[in-house]
Amino acid sequence: MAEGTPFEIPVPNGGKTSRTAPKLDRLLSASAALMSARGFSQTSIRDVAAETGLSLGGMYYYFKNKEDLLFLIQEKTFGSLLEIQEKTITEGGSAEERLQRLVKNHLAYFISHFNELKVCTFELDSLKGERYEKIAQLRRRYFLCMARVVGEMLGVPVDQVEEHGKIRQRTLFIFGMLNWVFMWYVPEKDDSVENLGSEMVDMVMNGLKGGNE
Amino acid sequence: MAEGTPFEIPVPNGGKTSRTAPKLDRLLSASAALMSARGFSQTSIRDVAAETGLSLGGMYYYFKNKEDLLFLIQEKTFGSLLEIQEKTITEGGSAEERLQRLVKNHLAYFISHFNELKVCTFELDSLKGERYEKIAQLRRRYFLCMARVVGEMLGVPVDQVEEHGKIRQRTLFIFGMLNWVFMWYVPEKDDSVENLGSEMVDMVMNGLKGGNE
Repeated sequence: MAEGTPFEIPVPNGGKTSRTAPKLDRLLSASAALMSARGFSQTSIRDVAAETGLSLGGMYYYFKNKEDLLFLIQEKTFGSLLEIQEKTITEGGSAEERLQRLVKNHLAYFISHFNELKVCTFELDSLKGERYEKIAQLRRRYFLCMARVVGEMLGVPVDQVEEHGKIRQRTLFIFGMLNWVFMWYVPEKDDSVENLGSEMVDMVMNGLKGGNE
Repeated sequence: MAEGTPFEIPVPNGGKTSRTAPKLDRLLSASAALMSARGFSQTSIRDVAAETGLSLGGMYYYFKNKEDLLFLIQEKTFGSLLEIQEKTITEGGSAEERLQRLVKNHLAYFISHFNELKVCTFELDSLKGERYEKIAQLRRRYFLCMARVVGEMLGVPVDQVEEHGKIRQRTLFIFGMLNWVFMWYVPEKDDSVENLGSEMVDMVMNGLKGGNE
């Protein structure tokens, strides 16, 4: 991940045409919706072509094959989220305040990218070799972004966070609360994203009974 | 689910042969392992036959088709867990104590049934019609088992728990912490199930910093 710009959407042709990135965005979003509904193995490139109105030739301009498409979806999802979170870390505040922003940002991002989260969760193992490794590295970097703030709250020095069992557990408990949301959240029935984020932060900080009791 | 024995493993032939249930258990366990590794759509009845050494005819003694097999796996998983949890509820203690047991039981059950949990999580939507509804009812009953104790801790009357937004959220936050474990738990690397359960209970009860700080 040290080669420079791992989180930019790869823009073929060096980004020389302004239409390229928005069209790729739409392609990835439509593909994620199909894969989320049918599963990766049951989604064909022809399905994606039919859904987007692109020709097969037009699509292969953006990716080499179906696994490459899945890689691009996952890279874009984790890359975009990581960019948001690494920025919020630099914006200061106490460890508690930064953790609150991390939790709320993660929740807001995924509630607006349900299909992508589902594909990232269910289809990580559909990637192989170098593609798998690149996404695993992004996930690791994202984990550490959250774990370092958790470590700071629990008084664990930053250079010990990566191998610290308790920090690993508690960070993953938070990810569990966050990521399970896609299994149950119904916008018409449940609270707004803002309120849900506040409730989750309250439980993370104060436990089940919350801070007001 | 009011017809009497929804959580017993269905035993064809009225359970007249003692070998029936253990053989069905092995069949369901082997099928869950295959579906967990390959996905439901990529697992064939022939794969299950090859894995278990049963003939195709022998297997159709236990289920009608592949969807029926998936249904049996999910029914057995939620049914067994619900039986454990409904029993622990009757064993008394404060709401805090009962919630601790519910969390620890759930964790212990799923860490010993990883494949089944993965299949239940990833393949709920592969069931249709009546089978889907039956599993949805089991899940609902399981949710309420936990939600009622959460409600008791937060002072919400039992008859209001089902429609109470905050109880729904906090209960589902706990399920998230629990169920996400299958995405990251590595027995060789992580804490024992007992310690992991204690850590989770500590975070649920006291928040991220825990009760000892």
